Amino acid sequence: MKSPAAFDLNQYLDQTCTRVDAALDKLLPAESVPPPTIHKAMRYSIFAGGKRIRPVLCLAACEAVGGTPAAAMPLACAVECIHTYSLIHDDLPSMDDDDLRRGKPTNHKVFGEGIAVLAGDALLTEAFALVARSQPPKRYPVRVLVSDLALAAGSLRLIAGQVQDLENEERHASLDEVKTTHLNKTAALITTSIRLGAMAGNASPSELKRLTRYGQDLGLAFQVIDDILDATSTKEIMGKSVRADEKNNKSTFPTVLGLDKSRQYAADLIADAHKQLKPFGPRATPLAAIADFFLTRKN
Amino acid sequence: MKSPAAFDLNQYLDQTCTRVDAALDKLLPAESVPPPTIHKAMRYSIFAGGKRIRPVLCLAACEAVGGTPAAAMPLACAVECIHTYSLIHDDLPSMDDDDLRRGKPTNHKVFGEGIAVLAGDALLTEAFALVARSQPPKRYPVRVLVSDLALAAGSLRLIAGQVQDLENEERHASLDEVKTTHLNKTAALITTSIRLGAMAGNASPSELKRLTRYGQDLGLAFQVIDDILDATSTKEIMGKSVRADEKNNKSTFPTVLGLDKSRQYAADLIADAHKQLKPFGPRATPLAAIADFFLTRKN
Repeated sequence: MKSPAAFDLNQYLDQTCTRVDAALDKLLPAESVPPPTIHKAMRYSIFAGGKRIRPVLCLAACEAVGGTPAAAMPLACAVECIHTYSLIHDDLPSMDDDDLRRGKPTNHKVFGEGIAVLAGDALLTEAFALVARSQPPKRYPVRVLVSDLALAAGSLRLIAGQVQDLENEERHASLDEVKTTHLNKTAALITTSIRLGAMAGNASPSELKRLTRYGQDLGLAFQVIDDILDATSTKEIMGKSVRADEKNNKSTFPTVLGLDKSRQYAADLIADAHKQLKPFGPRATPLAAIADFFLTRKN
Repeated sequence: MKSPAAFDLNQYLDQTCTRVDAALDKLLPAESVPPPTIHKAMRYSIFAGGKRIRPVLCLAACEAVGGTPAAAMPLACAVECIHTYSLIHDDLPSMDDDDLRRGKPTNHKVFGEGIAVLAGDALLTEAFALVARSQPPKRYPVRVLVSDLALAAGSLRLIAGQVQDLENEERHASLDEVKTTHLNKTAALITTSIRLGAMAGNASPSELKRLTRYGQDLGLAFQVIDDILDATSTKEIMGKSVRADEKNNKSTFPTVLGLDKSRQYAADLIADAHKQLKPFGPRATPLAAIADFFLTRKN
Protein backbone atom coordinates (compact mmCIF):
# COMPACT_ATOMS: atom_id res chain seq x y z
CA MET A 1 0.00 0.00 0.00
CA LYS A 2 1.30 3.42 -0.99
CA SER A 3 1.36 6.22 1.55
CA PRO A 4 -1.81 8.37 1.69
CA ALA A 5 -0.07 11.26 -0.06
CA ALA A 6 0.95 9.16 -3.06
CA PHE A 7 -2.36 7.30 -3.31
CA ASP A 8 -4.05 7.74 -6.69
CA LEU A 9 -7.79 7.28 -6.08
CA ASN A 10 -8.76 7.53 -9.74
CA GLN A 11 -6.39 4.74 -10.65
CA TYR A 12 -7.66 2.64 -7.71
CA LEU A 13 -11.28 3.21 -8.75
CA ASP A 14 -10.55 2.41 -12.40
CA GLN A 15 -8.69 -0.79 -11.59
CA THR A 16 -11.27 -1.94 -9.06
CA CYS A 17 -14.21 -1.16 -11.37
CA THR A 18 -12.57 -3.18 -14.13
CA ARG A 19 -12.24 -6.14 -11.76
CA VAL A 20 -15.83 -5.81 -10.54
CA ASP A 21 -17.14 -5.56 -14.12
CA ALA A 22 -15.20 -8.69 -15.10
CA ALA A 23 -16.56 -10.58 -12.07
CA LEU A 24 -20.16 -9.49 -12.77
CA ASP A 25 -19.76 -10.53 -16.40
CA LYS A 26 -18.52 -13.94 -15.29
CA LEU A 27 -21.02 -14.49 -12.46
CA LEU A 28 -24.28 -13.35 -14.12
CA PRO A 29 -26.04 -15.58 -16.68
CA ALA A 30 -25.02 -14.72 -20.28
CA GLU A 31 -27.48 -12.84 -22.51
CA SER A 32 -27.99 -15.96 -24.61
CA VAL A 33 -29.21 -18.09 -21.67
CA PRO A 34 -32.98 -18.72 -22.10
CA PRO A 35 -35.06 -16.74 -21.82
CA PRO A 36 -32.65 -14.17 -23.36
CA THR A 37 -35.05 -11.24 -22.70
CA ILE A 38 -34.58 -11.36 -18.94
CA HIS A 39 -30.81 -11.78 -19.05
CA LYS A 40 -30.48 -8.93 -21.56
CA ALA A 41 -32.58 -6.71 -19.28
CA MET A 42 -30.56 -7.64 -16.18
CA ARG A 43 -27.26 -6.96 -17.95
CA TYR A 44 -28.51 -3.75 -19.56
CA SER A 45 -28.88 -2.09 -16.16
CA ILE A 46 -25.91 -3.79 -14.48
CA PHE A 47 -23.60 -2.56 -17.25
CA ALA A 48 -25.18 0.89 -17.70
CA GLY A 49 -22.13 2.76 -16.43
CA GLY A 50 -22.61 2.70 -12.68
CA LYS A 51 -19.75 3.98 -10.56
CA ARG A 52 -19.59 0.69 -8.56
CA ILE A 53 -19.30 2.63 -5.30
CA ARG A 54 -20.78 -0.17 -3.18
CA PRO A 55 -18.57 -2.98 -4.58
CA VAL A 56 -15.50 -0.75 -4.32
CA LEU A 57 -16.33 -0.05 -0.65
CA CYS A 58 -16.87 -3.77 -0.05
CA LEU A 59 -13.47 -4.67 -1.49
CA ALA A 60 -11.71 -1.74 0.22
CA ALA A 61 -13.20 -2.74 3.60
CA CYS A 62 -11.90 -6.27 3.13
CA GLU A 63 -8.47 -4.80 2.42
CA ALA A 64 -8.67 -2.47 5.45
CA VAL A 65 -8.92 -5.44 7.84
CA GLY A 66 -6.08 -7.28 6.11
CA GLY A 67 -8.15 -9.58 3.89
CA THR A 68 -7.60 -10.43 0.22
CA PRO A 69 -10.06 -8.36 -1.83
CA ALA A 70 -10.74 -11.39 -4.08
CA ALA A 71 -12.40 -13.11 -1.09
CA ALA A 72 -15.03 -10.37 -1.04
CA MET A 73 -15.72 -10.30 -4.80
CA PRO A 74 -18.96 -12.38 -4.85
CA LEU A 75 -20.25 -10.15 -2.04
CA ALA A 76 -19.21 -7.00 -3.93
CA CYS A 77 -21.18 -8.28 -6.94
CA ALA A 78 -24.15 -9.12 -4.69
CA VAL A 79 -24.46 -5.57 -3.34
CA GLU A 80 -24.22 -4.17 -6.86
CA CYS A 81 -27.09 -6.48 -7.91
CA ILE A 82 -29.19 -5.19 -4.99
CA HIS A 83 -28.34 -1.58 -5.84
CA THR A 84 -29.20 -2.06 -9.52
CA TYR A 85 -32.49 -3.85 -8.75
CA SER A 86 -33.51 -0.98 -6.47
CA LEU A 87 -32.76 1.58 -9.21
CA ILE A 88 -34.78 -0.37 -11.82
CA HIS A 89 -37.80 -0.56 -9.51
CA ASP A 90 -37.41 3.06 -8.28
CA ASP A 91 -37.45 4.31 -11.87
CA LEU A 92 -40.78 2.57 -12.70
CA PRO A 93 -43.74 4.77 -13.69
CA SER A 94 -45.54 3.71 -10.47
CA MET A 95 -42.60 5.00 -8.40
CA ASP A 96 -40.29 7.88 -9.40
CA ASP A 97 -41.23 7.61 -13.11
CA ASP A 98 -37.76 8.38 -14.49
CA ASP A 99 -36.92 8.03 -18.19
CA LEU A 100 -33.19 8.56 -17.84
CA ARG A 101 -30.56 6.94 -15.62
CA ARG A 102 -26.80 7.44 -16.00
CA GLY A 103 -27.49 9.19 -19.31
CA LYS A 104 -29.32 6.16 -20.79
CA PRO A 105 -33.00 5.23 -21.08
CA THR A 106 -34.23 3.45 -17.93
CA ASN A 107 -34.87 -0.29 -18.00
CA HIS A 108 -38.65 -0.09 -18.47
CA LYS A 109 -38.20 2.41 -21.32
CA VAL A 110 -36.14 -0.20 -23.20
CA PHE A 111 -37.76 -3.51 -22.15
CA GLY A 112 -41.24 -2.49 -21.00
CA GLU A 113 -42.60 -2.36 -17.46
CA GLY A 114 -43.31 -6.07 -17.00
CA ILE A 115 -39.78 -7.16 -17.89
CA ALA A 116 -38.30 -4.31 -15.82
CA VAL A 117 -40.16 -5.53 -12.73
CA LEU A 118 -38.90 -9.08 -13.39
CA ALA A 119 -35.32 -7.96 -14.13
CA GLY A 120 -35.28 -6.22 -10.73
CA ASP A 121 -36.69 -9.33 -9.06
CA ALA A 122 -34.07 -11.48 -10.78
CA LEU A 123 -31.16 -9.27 -9.68
CA LEU A 124 -32.44 -9.24 -6.10
CA THR A 125 -32.63 -13.05 -6.14
CA GLU A 126 -29.21 -13.34 -7.81
CA ALA A 127 -27.67 -11.28 -5.01
CA PHE A 128 -28.47 -14.01 -2.50
CA ALA A 129 -27.22 -16.70 -4.88
CA LEU A 130 -23.91 -14.80 -5.01
CA VAL A 131 -23.67 -14.55 -1.22
CA ALA A 132 -24.24 -18.31 -1.06
CA ARG A 133 -21.31 -18.77 -3.46
CA SER A 134 -18.88 -16.83 -1.28
CA GLN A 135 -16.44 -18.64 1.00
CA PRO A 136 -16.27 -16.50 4.12
CA PRO A 137 -14.10 -17.27 7.17
CA LYS A 138 -15.55 -19.47 9.95
CA ARG A 139 -16.42 -16.52 12.19
CA TYR A 140 -18.89 -15.23 9.59
CA PRO A 141 -20.70 -18.16 7.92
CA VAL A 142 -22.97 -17.56 4.90
CA ARG A 143 -25.95 -17.56 7.31
CA VAL A 144 -24.61 -14.38 8.94
CA LEU A 145 -23.89 -12.67 5.61
CA VAL A 146 -27.36 -13.49 4.21
CA SER A 147 -29.01 -12.14 7.39
CA ASP A 148 -27.03 -8.91 7.19
CA LEU A 149 -27.84 -8.33 3.53
CA ALA A 150 -31.52 -9.31 3.87
CA LEU A 151 -31.95 -6.94 6.81
CA ALA A 152 -30.35 -4.03 4.94
CA ALA A 153 -32.28 -4.68 1.73
CA GLY A 154 -35.62 -5.51 3.36
CA SER A 155 -38.76 -3.78 4.62
CA LEU A 156 -37.04 -2.37 7.71
CA ARG A 157 -34.26 -0.54 5.82
CA LEU A 158 -33.81 -0.13 2.02
CA ILE A 159 -37.48 -0.75 1.16
CA ALA A 160 -38.62 1.22 4.22
CA GLY A 161 -36.61 4.15 2.89
CA GLN A 162 -38.23 3.92 -0.51
CA VAL A 163 -41.72 3.85 1.07
CA GLN A 164 -40.85 6.81 3.31
CA ASP A 165 -39.46 8.63 0.28
CA LEU A 166 -42.77 8.12 -1.57
CA GLU A 167 -44.66 9.26 1.54
CA ASN A 168 -42.48 12.37 1.98
CA GLU A 169 -43.76 13.67 -1.36
CA GLU A 170 -46.37 16.40 -1.18
CA ARG A 171 -45.87 16.95 2.57
CA HIS A 172 -43.45 18.78 4.86
CA ALA A 173 -41.14 16.25 6.54
CA SER A 174 -38.96 17.09 9.56
CA LEU A 175 -35.16 16.86 9.58
CA ASP A 176 -35.43 13.64 11.62
CA GLU A 177 -37.82 12.13 9.09
CA VAL A 178 -35.56 13.05 6.16
CA LYS A 179 -32.59 11.60 8.06
CA THR A 180 -34.41 8.34 8.86
CA THR A 181 -35.52 8.01 5.24
CA HIS A 182 -31.99 8.39 3.94
CA LEU A 183 -30.39 6.22 6.61
CA ASN A 184 -32.76 3.53 5.34
CA LYS A 185 -32.80 4.29 1.64
CA THR A 186 -29.09 4.87 1.08
CA ALA A 187 -26.95 4.34 4.17
CA ALA A 188 -28.17 0.80 4.97
CA LEU A 189 -26.92 -0.77 1.76
CA ILE A 190 -23.67 1.23 1.75
CA THR A 191 -23.06 0.15 5.35
CA THR A 192 -23.77 -3.49 4.55
CA SER A 193 -21.46 -3.35 1.52
CA ILE A 194 -18.68 -2.35 3.90
CA ARG A 195 -19.70 -4.85 6.60
CA LEU A 196 -19.81 -7.76 4.15
CA GLY A 197 -16.34 -6.90 2.85
CA ALA A 198 -15.00 -6.58 6.39
CA MET A 199 -16.53 -9.93 7.36
CA ALA A 200 -15.05 -11.61 4.26
CA GLY A 201 -11.70 -10.25 5.48
CA ASN A 202 -12.29 -11.77 8.96
CA ALA A 203 -12.66 -8.44 10.78
CA SER A 204 -12.47 -8.42 14.58
CA PRO A 205 -15.67 -7.32 16.34
CA SER A 206 -14.20 -3.89 17.13
CA GLU A 207 -13.00 -3.41 13.54
CA LEU A 208 -16.48 -4.34 12.30
CA LYS A 209 -18.06 -1.83 14.69
CA ARG A 210 -15.83 1.03 13.50
CA LEU A 211 -16.36 0.24 9.83
CA THR A 212 -20.13 0.06 10.40
CA ARG A 213 -20.05 3.58 11.82
CA TYR A 214 -17.82 4.72 8.91
CA GLY A 215 -20.44 3.26 6.54
CA GLN A 216 -23.34 5.05 8.21
CA ASP A 217 -21.48 8.37 8.08
CA LEU A 218 -20.56 7.83 4.46
CA GLY A 219 -24.02 6.64 3.45
CA LEU A 220 -25.78 9.59 5.01
CA ALA A 221 -23.23 12.05 3.55
CA PHE A 222 -23.74 10.46 0.12
CA GLN A 223 -27.45 11.21 0.26
CA VAL A 224 -27.01 14.76 1.62
CA ILE A 225 -24.71 15.47 -1.34
CA ASP A 226 -27.11 13.74 -3.75
CA ASP A 227 -29.88 16.07 -2.56
CA ILE A 228 -27.59 19.10 -2.95
CA LEU A 229 -26.59 18.05 -6.48
CA ASP A 230 -30.22 17.38 -7.46
CA ALA A 231 -31.03 20.95 -6.37
CA THR A 232 -28.00 22.67 -7.93
CA SER A 233 -26.50 20.64 -10.81
CA THR A 234 -27.53 20.07 -14.43
CA LYS A 235 -28.87 17.07 -16.34
CA GLU A 236 -25.70 17.06 -18.51
CA ILE A 237 -23.33 16.81 -15.54
CA MET A 238 -25.49 14.33 -13.62
CA GLY A 239 -26.47 12.03 -16.52
CA LYS A 240 -29.99 11.86 -15.10
CA SER A 241 -32.97 14.16 -14.61
CA VAL A 242 -32.39 16.88 -11.99
CA ARG A 243 -34.85 18.91 -9.87
CA ALA A 244 -36.74 15.61 -9.46
CA ASP A 245 -37.17 16.33 -5.75
CA GLU A 246 -38.56 19.80 -6.46
CA LYS A 247 -40.87 18.40 -9.16
CA ASN A 248 -42.23 15.85 -6.67
CA ASN A 249 -42.38 18.36 -3.78
CA LYS A 250 -40.04 16.05 -1.87
CA SER A 251 -38.56 17.07 1.49
CA THR A 252 -34.75 16.85 1.27
CA PHE A 253 -31.77 17.99 3.33
CA PRO A 254 -31.54 21.28 1.38
CA THR A 255 -35.27 21.98 1.81
CA VAL A 256 -35.24 21.37 5.59
CA LEU A 257 -31.71 22.63 6.43
CA GLY A 258 -30.85 25.01 3.60
CA LEU A 259 -27.88 24.53 1.25
CA ASP A 260 -25.11 25.89 3.51
CA LYS A 261 -26.06 23.85 6.56
CA SER A 262 -26.49 20.77 4.37
CA ARG A 263 -22.93 21.20 3.07
CA GLN A 264 -21.63 21.58 6.63
CA TYR A 265 -23.56 18.51 7.77
CA ALA A 266 -21.98 16.43 4.98
CA ALA A 267 -18.51 17.72 5.94
CA ASP A 268 -19.10 16.80 9.62
CA LEU A 269 -20.17 13.29 8.67
CA ILE A 270 -17.06 12.78 6.53
CA ALA A 271 -14.86 14.07 9.37
CA ASP A 272 -16.38 11.45 11.69
CA ALA A 273 -15.87 8.79 9.01
CA HIS A 274 -12.14 9.64 8.94
CA LYS A 275 -12.01 9.37 12.74
CA GLN A 276 -13.36 5.81 12.58
CA LEU A 277 -10.57 4.80 10.17
CA LYS A 278 -7.66 6.01 12.35
CA PRO A 279 -6.75 2.65 13.99
CA PHE A 280 -6.57 0.90 10.61
CA GLY A 281 -3.51 2.85 9.48
CA PRO A 282 -2.39 2.83 5.84
CA ARG A 283 -4.52 -0.22 4.94
CA ALA A 284 -7.53 2.10 5.13
CA THR A 285 -6.05 4.63 2.69
CA PRO A 286 -8.57 3.73 -0.07
CA LEU A 287 -11.52 4.07 2.36
CA ALA A 288 -10.21 7.46 3.50
CA ALA A 289 -9.74 8.67 -0.07
CA ILE A 290 -13.26 7.50 -0.98
CA ALA A 291 -14.69 9.49 1.94
CA ASP A 292 -13.04 12.66 0.61
CA PHE A 293 -14.19 11.84 -2.90
CA PHE A 294 -17.80 11.58 -1.65
CA LEU A 295 -17.64 15.09 -0.27
CA THR A 296 -16.30 16.65 -3.45
CA ARG A 297 -18.08 14.66 -6.16
CA LYS A 298 -19.87 16.60 -8.88
CA ASN A 299 -22.13 13.81 -10.23
CA MET B 1 -48.75 -41.86 11.75
CA LYS B 2 -52.14 -43.36 10.90
CA SER B 3 -52.47 -45.93 8.13
CA PRO B 4 -53.14 -44.45 4.67
CA ALA B 5 -56.76 -45.61 4.74
CA ALA B 6 -57.51 -43.80 8.00
CA PHE B 7 -55.60 -40.64 7.04
CA ASP B 8 -57.78 -37.52 7.07
CA LEU B 9 -56.17 -35.09 4.61
CA ASN B 10 -58.56 -32.24 5.34
CA GLN B 11 -57.76 -32.40 9.02
CA TYR B 12 -54.02 -32.59 8.23
CA LEU B 13 -54.24 -29.57 5.92
CA ASP B 14 -56.30 -27.56 8.43
CA GLN B 15 -53.93 -28.26 11.29
CA THR B 16 -50.82 -27.61 9.23
CA CYS B 17 -52.22 -24.38 7.75
CA THR B 18 -53.03 -23.14 11.26
CA ARG B 19 -49.43 -23.81 12.31
CA VAL B 20 -48.00 -22.13 9.19
CA ASP B 21 -50.25 -19.08 9.67
CA ALA B 22 -49.15 -18.77 13.29
CA ALA B 23 -45.48 -19.02 12.26
CA LEU B 24 -45.88 -16.42 9.49
CA ASP B 25 -47.65 -14.10 11.93
CA LYS B 26 -44.79 -14.49 14.39
CA LEU B 27 -41.93 -14.26 11.87
CA LEU B 28 -43.10 -11.33 9.69
CA PRO B 29 -42.81 -7.73 10.96
CA ALA B 30 -46.06 -6.54 12.63
CA GLU B 31 -48.30 -4.09 10.78
CA SER B 32 -47.37 -1.36 13.24
CA VAL B 33 -43.63 -1.55 12.49
CA PRO B 34 -42.61 1.58 10.54
CA PRO B 35 -43.33 2.21 7.82
CA PRO B 36 -46.73 0.55 8.49
CA THR B 37 -47.81 0.83 4.83
CA ILE B 38 -45.33 -1.77 3.62
CA HIS B 39 -45.97 -4.23 6.44
CA LYS B 40 -49.75 -3.93 5.96
CA ALA B 41 -49.31 -4.59 2.24
CA MET B 42 -47.04 -7.61 2.86
CA ARG B 43 -49.48 -9.09 5.39
CA TYR B 44 -52.53 -8.33 3.25
CA SER B 45 -51.35 -10.73 0.55
CA ILE B 46 -49.73 -13.27 2.88
CA PHE B 47 -52.98 -13.64 4.85
CA ALA B 48 -55.33 -13.43 1.84
CA GLY B 49 -56.52 -17.03 2.21
CA GLY B 50 -53.86 -18.97 0.33
CA LYS B 51 -54.03 -22.76 0.56
CA ARG B 52 -50.41 -22.94 1.86
CA ILE B 53 -49.68 -25.82 -0.51
CA ARG B 54 -45.95 -25.12 -0.67
CA PRO B 55 -45.40 -24.84 3.11
CA VAL B 56 -47.51 -27.95 3.68
CA LEU B 57 -45.38 -29.85 1.15
CA CYS B 58 -42.21 -28.55 2.82
CA LEU B 59 -43.31 -29.78 6.25
CA ALA B 60 -44.67 -33.08 4.90
CA ALA B 61 -41.36 -33.75 3.09
CA CYS B 62 -39.46 -33.15 6.33
CA GLU B 63 -41.79 -35.66 8.02
CA ALA B 64 -41.36 -38.18 5.18
CA VAL B 65 -37.61 -38.45 5.82
CA GLY B 66 -38.12 -38.76 9.58
CA GLY B 67 -37.49 -35.13 10.54
CA THR B 68 -39.46 -32.97 12.97
CA PRO B 69 -41.72 -30.68 10.93
CA ALA B 70 -40.93 -27.76 13.28
CA ALA B 71 -37.33 -27.82 11.98
CA ALA B 72 -38.62 -26.96 8.52
CA MET B 73 -41.02 -24.19 9.60
CA PRO B 74 -38.83 -21.13 8.74
CA LEU B 75 -38.24 -22.72 5.32
CA ALA B 76 -41.97 -23.38 4.88
CA CYS B 77 -42.61 -19.70 5.62
CA ALA B 78 -39.83 -18.69 3.21
CA VAL B 79 -41.37 -20.54 0.25
CA GLU B 80 -44.78 -19.03 1.03
CA CYS B 81 -43.16 -15.55 0.98
CA ILE B 82 -41.64 -16.30 -2.44
CA HIS B 83 -44.96 -17.63 -3.75
CA THR B 84 -46.88 -14.59 -2.47
CA TYR B 85 -44.34 -12.12 -3.90
CA SER B 86 -44.61 -13.81 -7.30
CA LEU B 87 -48.42 -13.53 -7.22
CA ILE B 88 -48.31 -9.83 -6.27
CA HIS B 89 -45.94 -9.03 -9.14
CA ASP B 90 -47.76 -11.33 -11.62
CA ASP B 91 -51.04 -9.53 -10.90
CA LEU B 92 -49.60 -6.06 -11.71
CA PRO B 93 -51.13 -4.12 -14.62
CA SER B 94 -47.82 -4.45 -16.52
CA MET B 95 -48.01 -8.27 -16.23
CA ASP B 96 -51.27 -10.28 -16.03
CA ASP B 97 -53.32 -7.25 -14.93
CA ASP B 98 -55.59 -9.11 -12.49
CA ASP B 99 -58.01 -7.33 -10.17
CA LEU B 100 -59.00 -10.37 -8.15
CA ARG B 101 -56.98 -13.03 -6.32
CA ARG B 102 -58.45 -15.63 -3.96
CA GLY B 103 -61.73 -13.72 -4.10
CA LYS B 104 -60.16 -10.46 -2.86
CA PRO B 105 -58.86 -7.35 -4.63
CA THR B 106 -55.22 -7.78 -5.68
CA ASN B 107 -52.47 -5.99 -3.77
CA HIS B 108 -52.06 -3.09 -6.22
CA LYS B 109 -55.83 -2.53 -6.25
CA VAL B 110 -55.71 -1.91 -2.49
CA PHE B 111 -52.29 -0.27 -1.97
CA GLY B 112 -51.43 1.14 -5.39
CA GLU B 113 -48.87 -0.14 -7.88
CA GLY B 114 -45.76 1.38 -6.27
CA ILE B 115 -46.39 -0.20 -2.87
CA ALA B 116 -47.38 -3.51 -4.51
CA VAL B 117 -44.01 -3.67 -6.29
CA LEU B 118 -42.24 -2.92 -2.99
CA ALA B 119 -44.36 -5.39 -0.99
CA GLY B 120 -43.33 -8.12 -3.45
CA ASP B 121 -39.69 -7.05 -3.19
CA ALA B 122 -39.91 -7.11 0.61
CA LEU B 123 -41.43 -10.61 0.72
CA LEU B 124 -38.76 -11.91 -1.66
CA THR B 125 -36.05 -10.43 0.57
CA GLU B 126 -37.75 -11.72 3.74
CA ALA B 127 -37.70 -15.25 2.32
CA PHE B 128 -33.90 -15.28 2.41
CA ALA B 129 -33.86 -13.76 5.90
CA LEU B 130 -36.07 -16.69 6.99
CA VAL B 131 -33.79 -19.28 5.40
CA ALA B 132 -30.88 -17.68 7.26
CA ARG B 133 -32.83 -18.12 10.52
CA SER B 134 -33.30 -21.86 10.02
CA GLN B 135 -31.05 -24.35 11.81
CA PRO B 136 -30.55 -27.12 9.29
CA PRO B 137 -28.46 -30.27 9.91
CA LYS B 138 -24.73 -30.17 9.12
CA ARG B 139 -25.13 -31.96 5.79
CA TYR B 140 -27.19 -29.06 4.44
CA PRO B 141 -25.81 -25.75 5.75
CA VAL B 142 -27.72 -22.49 5.13
CA ARG B 143 -25.43 -21.86 2.15
CA VAL B 144 -26.91 -24.92 0.38
CA LEU B 145 -30.50 -23.97 1.21
CA VAL B 146 -30.05 -20.37 0.00
CA SER B 147 -28.50 -21.63 -3.27
CA ASP B 148 -31.38 -24.05 -3.85
CA LEU B 149 -34.05 -21.41 -3.21
CA ALA B 150 -32.28 -18.68 -5.21
CA LEU B 151 -31.89 -21.00 -8.18
CA ALA B 152 -35.57 -22.00 -8.11
CA ALA B 153 -36.80 -18.42 -7.65
CA GLY B 154 -34.34 -16.79 -10.06
CA SER B 155 -34.01 -15.92 -13.73
CA LEU B 156 -33.35 -19.53 -14.76
CA ARG B 157 -36.54 -20.98 -13.26
CA LEU B 158 -39.48 -19.10 -11.60
CA ILE B 159 -38.76 -15.76 -13.30
CA ALA B 160 -37.86 -17.51 -16.57
CA GLY B 161 -41.29 -19.14 -16.45
CA GLN B 162 -43.01 -15.82 -15.96
CA VAL B 163 -41.10 -14.31 -18.91
CA GLN B 164 -41.90 -17.32 -21.10
CA ASP B 165 -45.53 -17.08 -20.02
CA LEU B 166 -45.63 -13.42 -21.15
CA GLU B 167 -43.92 -14.39 -24.41
CA ASN B 168 -46.35 -17.30 -25.04
CA GLU B 169 -49.21 -14.80 -25.29
CA GLU B 170 -50.45 -14.02 -28.79
CA ARG B 171 -48.45 -16.86 -30.38
CA HIS B 172 -48.77 -20.62 -30.84
CA ALA B 173 -46.39 -22.40 -28.46
CA SER B 174 -45.49 -26.09 -28.79
CA LEU B 175 -46.19 -28.71 -26.10
CA ASP B 176 -42.50 -28.66 -25.17
CA GLU B 177 -42.55 -24.89 -24.77
CA VAL B 178 -45.67 -25.00 -22.59
CA LYS B 179 -44.08 -27.76 -20.52
CA THR B 180 -40.81 -25.82 -20.07
CA THR B 181 -42.72 -22.70 -19.09
CA HIS B 182 -44.67 -24.54 -16.41
CA LEU B 183 -41.72 -26.55 -15.14
CA ASN B 184 -40.12 -23.17 -14.54
CA LYS B 185 -43.12 -21.11 -13.47
CA THR B 186 -44.75 -23.60 -11.12
CA ALA B 187 -42.81 -26.84 -10.65
CA ALA B 188 -39.49 -25.25 -9.65
CA LEU B 189 -40.81 -23.58 -6.48
CA ILE B 190 -42.98 -26.58 -5.54
CA THR B 191 -39.96 -28.85 -5.99
CA THR B 192 -37.76 -26.60 -3.89
CA SER B 193 -40.40 -26.42 -1.16
CA ILE B 194 -40.18 -30.19 -0.92
CA ARG B 195 -36.36 -30.26 -1.20
CA LEU B 196 -35.90 -27.66 1.55
CA GLY B 197 -38.18 -29.64 3.88
CA ALA B 198 -36.35 -32.86 3.08
CA MET B 199 -32.99 -31.20 3.71
CA ALA B 200 -34.20 -29.77 7.03
CA GLY B 201 -35.13 -33.36 7.93
CA ASN B 202 -31.61 -34.55 6.99
CA ALA B 203 -32.66 -36.58 3.94
CA SER B 204 -30.18 -39.06 2.45
CA PRO B 205 -29.05 -38.23 -1.11
CA SER B 206 -31.30 -40.95 -2.57
CA GLU B 207 -34.31 -39.75 -0.55
CA LEU B 208 -33.67 -36.22 -1.78
CA LYS B 209 -33.50 -37.43 -5.37
CA ARG B 210 -36.83 -39.27 -5.15
CA LEU B 211 -38.58 -36.37 -3.47
CA THR B 212 -37.21 -33.99 -6.11
CA ARG B 213 -38.78 -36.16 -8.82
CA TYR B 214 -42.04 -36.33 -6.82
CA GLY B 215 -41.98 -32.52 -6.65
CA GLN B 216 -41.46 -32.11 -10.40
CA ASP B 217 -44.34 -34.50 -11.14
CA LEU B 218 -46.59 -32.74 -8.67
CA GLY B 219 -45.62 -29.26 -9.83
CA LEU B 220 -46.26 -30.00 -13.47
CA ALA B 221 -49.56 -31.76 -12.65
CA PHE B 222 -50.60 -28.74 -10.58
CA GLN B 223 -50.19 -26.46 -13.57
CA VAL B 224 -51.89 -28.84 -16.03
CA ILE B 225 -54.89 -28.91 -13.68
CA ASP B 226 -54.73 -25.13 -13.21
CA ASP B 227 -54.93 -24.70 -16.99
CA ILE B 228 -57.89 -27.15 -17.15
CA LEU B 229 -59.72 -25.32 -14.36
CA ASP B 230 -59.07 -21.92 -15.97
CA ALA B 231 -60.67 -23.25 -19.14
CA THR B 232 -63.64 -25.06 -17.52
CA SER B 233 -64.45 -23.62 -14.06
CA THR B 234 -66.26 -20.47 -12.88
CA LYS B 235 -65.09 -17.30 -11.13
CA GLU B 236 -67.26 -18.21 -8.10
CA ILE B 237 -65.64 -21.62 -7.62
CA MET B 238 -62.10 -20.40 -8.35
CA GLY B 239 -62.18 -17.14 -6.38
CA LYS B 240 -60.28 -15.45 -9.22
CA SER B 241 -60.91 -14.44 -12.82
CA VAL B 242 -61.23 -17.43 -15.19
CA ARG B 243 -60.69 -17.71 -18.97
CA ALA B 244 -57.66 -15.45 -18.38
CA ASP B 245 -55.58 -17.69 -20.68
CA GLU B 246 -58.19 -17.47 -23.44
CA LYS B 247 -58.47 -13.70 -22.99
CA ASN B 248 -54.68 -13.36 -23.38
CA ASN B 249 -54.50 -15.92 -26.23
CA LYS B 250 -52.14 -17.93 -24.06
CA SER B 251 -50.96 -21.40 -25.11
CA THR B 252 -51.83 -23.88 -22.34
CA PHE B 253 -51.95 -27.67 -21.91
CA PRO B 254 -55.64 -27.77 -22.96
CA THR B 255 -54.98 -25.63 -26.07
CA VAL B 256 -52.04 -27.76 -27.26
CA LEU B 257 -53.18 -31.22 -26.01
CA GLY B 258 -56.96 -30.92 -25.72
CA LEU B 259 -58.86 -31.40 -22.44
CA ASP B 260 -58.97 -35.22 -22.40
CA LYS B 261 -55.28 -35.72 -23.07
CA SER B 262 -54.45 -33.00 -20.53
CA ARG B 263 -56.44 -34.87 -17.86
CA GLN B 264 -54.64 -38.12 -18.75
CA TYR B 265 -51.25 -36.36 -18.62
CA ALA B 266 -51.99 -35.05 -15.12
CA ALA B 267 -53.07 -38.55 -14.00
CA ASP B 268 -49.84 -40.06 -15.38
CA LEU B 269 -47.73 -37.50 -13.53
CA ILE B 270 -49.52 -38.21 -10.25
CA ALA B 271 -49.03 -41.96 -10.77
CA ASP B 272 -45.29 -41.40 -11.16
CA ALA B 273 -45.31 -39.19 -8.05
CA HIS B 274 -46.81 -42.09 -6.06
CA LYS B 275 -44.13 -44.40 -7.41
CA GLN B 276 -41.40 -42.13 -6.05
CA LEU B 277 -42.93 -42.26 -2.57
CA LYS B 278 -43.01 -46.09 -2.28
CA PRO B 279 -39.74 -46.57 -0.29
CA PHE B 280 -40.79 -44.00 2.32
CA GLY B 281 -43.65 -46.15 3.63
CA PRO B 282 -46.32 -44.71 5.95
CA ARG B 283 -44.26 -41.58 6.77
CA ALA B 284 -45.07 -40.38 3.24
CA THR B 285 -48.84 -40.80 3.71
CA PRO B 286 -49.47 -37.02 3.75
CA LEU B 287 -47.40 -36.53 0.56
CA ALA B 288 -49.34 -39.34 -1.14
CA ALA B 289 -52.68 -37.91 -0.07
CA ILE B 290 -51.65 -34.44 -1.31
CA ALA B 291 -50.79 -35.92 -4.73
CA ASP B 292 -54.32 -37.38 -5.01
CA PHE B 293 -55.80 -34.11 -3.79
CA PHE B 294 -53.94 -32.24 -6.56
CA LEU B 295 -55.54 -34.44 -9.19
CA THR B 296 -59.08 -33.97 -7.93
CA ARG B 297 -59.06 -30.34 -6.75
CA LYS B 298 -61.85 -28.09 -8.00
CA ASN B 299 -60.24 -24.70 -7.23
